[in-house]
Amino acid sequence: METVSENRSFGGTQGVYRHASKATGGEMTFGLFLPDEAHFGPVPLLWYLSGLTCTHENAMVKAGAQAHAAAHGIALVFPDTSPRGEDVADDEAYDLGQGAGFYIDATEAPWAPHFKMESYILGDLTEALFDNFALDQEAQSITGHSMGGHGALTLAAKDGRFKSVSAFSPICNPTESDWGKKQFEAYLGSVHAGEGHDATCLVREGALEAPVLIDTGTDDQFGDLLKTEALAQALAERRMEATVRMQKGYDHSYFFVSTFIEDHIEFHAEALYS
Amino acid sequence: METVSENRSFGGTQGVYRHASKATGGEMTFGLFLPDEAHFGPVPLLWYLSGLTCTHENAMVKAGAQAHAAAHGIALVFPDTSPRGEDVADDEAYDLGQGAGFYIDATEAPWAPHFKMESYILGDLTEALFDNFALDQEAQSITGHSMGGHGALTLAAKDGRFKSVSAFSPICNPTESDWGKKQFEAYLGSVHAGEGHDATCLVREGALEAPVLIDTGTDDQFGDLLKTEALAQALAERRMEATVRMQKGYDHSYFFVSTFIEDHIEFHAEALYS
Repeated sequence: METVSENRSFGGTQGVYRHASKATGGEMTFGLFLPDEAHFGPVPLLWYLSGLTCTHENAMVKAGAQAHAAAHGIALVFPDTSPRGEDVADDEAYDLGQGAGFYIDATEAPWAPHFKMESYILGDLTEALFDNFALDQEAQSITGHSMGGHGALTLAAKDGRFKSVSAFSPICNPTESDWGKKQFEAYLGSVHAGEGHDATCLVREGALEAPVLIDTGTDDQFGDLLKTEALAQALAERRMEATVRMQKGYDHSYFFVSTFIEDHIEFHAEALYS
Repeated sequence: METVSENRSFGGTQGVYRHASKATGGEMTFGLFLPDEAHFGPVPLLWYLSGLTCTHENAMVKAGAQAHAAAHGIALVFPDTSPRGEDVADDEAYDLGQGAGFYIDATEAPWAPHFKMESYILGDLTEALFDNFALDQEAQSITGHSMGGHGALTLAAKDGRFKSVSAFSPICNPTESDWGKKQFEAYLGSVHAGEGHDATCLVREGALEAPVLIDTGTDDQFGDLLKTEALAQALAERRMEATVRMQKGYDHSYFFVSTFIEDHIEFHAEALYS
């Protein structure tokens, strides 16, 4: 593992690291914030999955998460949103290909060789993190923004390791949205194949156990694509421990995420330390 | 004045606006965070001057200042660091020309026609702000980072309106630094002419009255260019109300600024509300 940079931040260290991934068949870059407490032993880990067009860097510099993670002694990992490189397939659209991995394992050409973000997150990156840093494997939670909110909810439904899951303006029902249908057709061969990667479908099937917190802005410019109403209905129908907040006047930007990141980290801290 | 964007942030509004400036002879862009309290009447204003290569945007998205400004009901203005445009002189170096205005009024060719950042900040931008927004002209303070820290300290020495001044890793003694000598020669015709724009020289002359807070990292990669020691000495010699903190392990980045921005806003809030 190569250290790209390390900066002191809120008494801890904000690092950027590069490592080889078998799943994606190439080099991957991620950000990791380690609070001061990691010097003394393993600390809880909160995963932050980013949205369309983002790299590992956007949330790391714009969400303001480190202040609150440091206050609770929690580490933060910021994975990239797709494989990258000249040998990796891409598309001219901002919402397909590089920067738009959707946290699934593609089965179709030309995507299948590298676009294995589910396996990367749950496998290779997990292994790299726990092999190299003082992190507590028994204390993990997950959050994300937009496409990353979809990733957080769906990966939490597939992997019981996450004690809690939250999301900022997540894509809630991608099989019914233009942020989802095109991507499932391209990566998986059909929209139908995407149902196993759709938070609303998964909740309806009873696949998600972790407590849920969702924040979405009432003035989200992509509100129609998110289908928050479908997931809100499914969560309530299942009588799940879940909070869905529509935040007045907020949009889809990092100005929204940074406003509510403190609430999300407190929500996860409660689950991680219980 | 043109509204470029407005995003809800921490209960207030993070706006970006464009306006014509006589001083710089062109269009200028700035960010303004207005807390919720501005709906009910004028609020205090904290100026944030940015460093080399920055636009109005860097601190606005990376410093995490809005959370703490909102908590204290304080507005934040993020000016650009120079005039911009194809008709504006520039240099290939990152530290001269566009993105490197040094908060002074150039007298020399080719810079003199547009590089009037001191007049822009203290004149045109001030006027635009108080004409268009609910801001309290009697409650202003100023901060900045690196070149912007130099700007904050020197403009506070020239203009008694600022109740307090702080800086993150400021250029403290530019007439003795490679971040200063080249620029004063280019913009003003000589290093000597820069003494009126050098925080250490100004403090020695007794020009600064406002209380001072300075934070600089012990691991600042540009530490030798900042000359913190010269200003620390001058402040102590004058028995000024000043705090200079060398922060262990921190560097010159926004990871440093965001770590201590809460302290700075609390420092200014005390002056602004007294």
